[in-house]
Amino acid sequence: MTRGVLAVDLGGTKAAAAVVDRDGMAGARRRAPAPRTLADTVEWIAAGVSGAAAVGVIVPGIYVPSTGRAWCPNLWGRDEVPLRDALADRLAVPVTIDSDRAGYVLGEAWLGAARGCRNALFVAIGTGIGVGILVEGRVLRGAHGVAGAAGWFALTGQWREDYAAMGCWEAESAGPALARAAGLPDAAAVVRAARDGRPDALAAVDRAARVTAMGIANLVSAFDPDVVVLGGGLGEGAADLLLPVIEAEARRWAQPIAMARCRIVRSQLGDGAGLLGAARLAWEAVDRA
Amino acid sequence: MTRGVLAVDLGGTKAAAAVVDRDGMAGARRRAPAPRTLADTVEWIAAGVSGAAAVGVIVPGIYVPSTGRAWCPNLWGRDEVPLRDALADRLAVPVTIDSDRAGYVLGEAWLGAARGCRNALFVAIGTGIGVGILVEGRVLRGAHGVAGAAGWFALTGQWREDYAAMGCWEAESAGPALARAAGLPDAAAVVRAARDGRPDALAAVDRAARVTAMGIANLVSAFDPDVVVLGGGLGEGAADLLLPVIEAEARRWAQPIAMARCRIVRSQLGDGAGLLGAARLAWEAVDRA
Repeated sequence: MTRGVLAVDLGGTKAAAAVVDRDGMAGARRRAPAPRTLADTVEWIAAGVSGAAAVGVIVPGIYVPSTGRAWCPNLWGRDEVPLRDALADRLAVPVTIDSDRAGYVLGEAWLGAARGCRNALFVAIGTGIGVGILVEGRVLRGAHGVAGAAGWFALTGQWREDYAAMGCWEAESAGPALARAAGLPDAAAVVRAARDGRPDALAAVDRAARVTAMGIANLVSAFDPDVVVLGGGLGEGAADLLLPVIEAEARRWAQPIAMARCRIVRSQLGDGAGLLGAARLAWEAVDRA
Repeated sequence: MTRGVLAVDLGGTKAAAAVVDRDGMAGARRRAPAPRTLADTVEWIAAGVSGAAAVGVIVPGIYVPSTGRAWCPNLWGRDEVPLRDALADRLAVPVTIDSDRAGYVLGEAWLGAARGCRNALFVAIGTGIGVGILVEGRVLRGAHGVAGAAGWFALTGQWREDYAAMGCWEAESAGPALARAAGLPDAAAVVRAARDGRPDALAAVDRAARVTAMGIANLVSAFDPDVVVLGGGLGEGAADLLLPVIEAEARRWAQPIAMARCRIVRSQLGDGAGLLGAARLAWEAVDRA
């Protein structure tokens, strides 16, 4: 009998965990506000590990495989924490860790909108913008765990002060930018107003979509993927508004052969992508063992 | 005794070939105007293969490993050609083929400015712009052999008609754009005039360097490499003028952690990078056999 693995999705505000079997069937999800210390995080994970063959964890930030350390300022403050060692000391089963965006693309490539694709991108647009990258079936991490930081893409040609804190694409198109451009409290309100046909909201969404199209075009020219999956709270939630603009505009900018052969689609797994990606990380470790 | 491999660099205007040993020492180079038919290309390569353990070939365009076909409009016209099969039919030793930009980055990572780096980019700026990408020591090709087509990067925010034929970055910063901006016959003349202090030439170089800095910043945010090597006729030839602007401007735009840990340097191998990269392809095939 095959046991399940424990999949853990640590978000900036909440944590989720579930036991997941080889086919991606998940047991009941355990949820909690995000633990704010490394010790609490380890204990919260350990509480669910009984019987699991391995553990996969994704974190909202940068994970450096060579050191096993994670940098997640929204979760554990400004310093790197020794996440791998802390979990290895406490848990008796193999632990695999990666960034949340790595988890999203692994999840969608396993059971979602990128199913079966070996070259896939997951563009997460929410309060920030980040990209999970699969190259020939493997997660691209870069030399320092930062690969896919596409929220920093230079797209507008003209430097602006607010780009310094988060990057140009993110400052132009993520949730807070959209809310500010439309003069509404948050991105969800802008999306509702755009669906109601309010011109200022429609203009703000159109502008964000055009900049996002340039960002996605650049990803297509650089990576030549089979598929780009649009996800994240805003990316998935407003996909119906964003995708027509992205489709048309990305086609103007991107390398034409790569673009003609690449699909741009909405996430199929929603906020379950991360948990399934974490499970995938754990199952890969089981298979390597 | 180890025999050498035959390295072949097929350019859009000229071809070069040499026997290269395990340490990268090359025998006499054979040069010729680029053969304009597939049959002539095969015969030109076959004429140098005697005694070689394997052959490595790089082509100025797109090579699709899954089909063995190459698309090189400057060389063999607008149709794909069955390069791998044609060479395999004629030659009795293993043949490995890749794009020229793959060759450049492999050469520089073997014996040049990216020596020993497993995550490296080669940004070739000449009459066009293309990028060779090494991820964990392997060439990134993408799903259809197009990866690294960064000349198509959207960088200026405002679409212009001439982007449609070659992409925004290339239309703004490659050799022909530089010549046109300065009102001079070619990029080499602009570089000479800039070195002489002519204001219009200096302004054109500065503009091209600023757009190039955005392109390189985007590559750094996306790939998080150890090193970016600037090469190609214009990129290497004018590196002294371009690099100070690129260094300063890329730092404004790129993800800060990735940028702080990445060097941006001039090619060390010049037009020998391609030949050494082709040799590397061939030696890797020997080692796999």
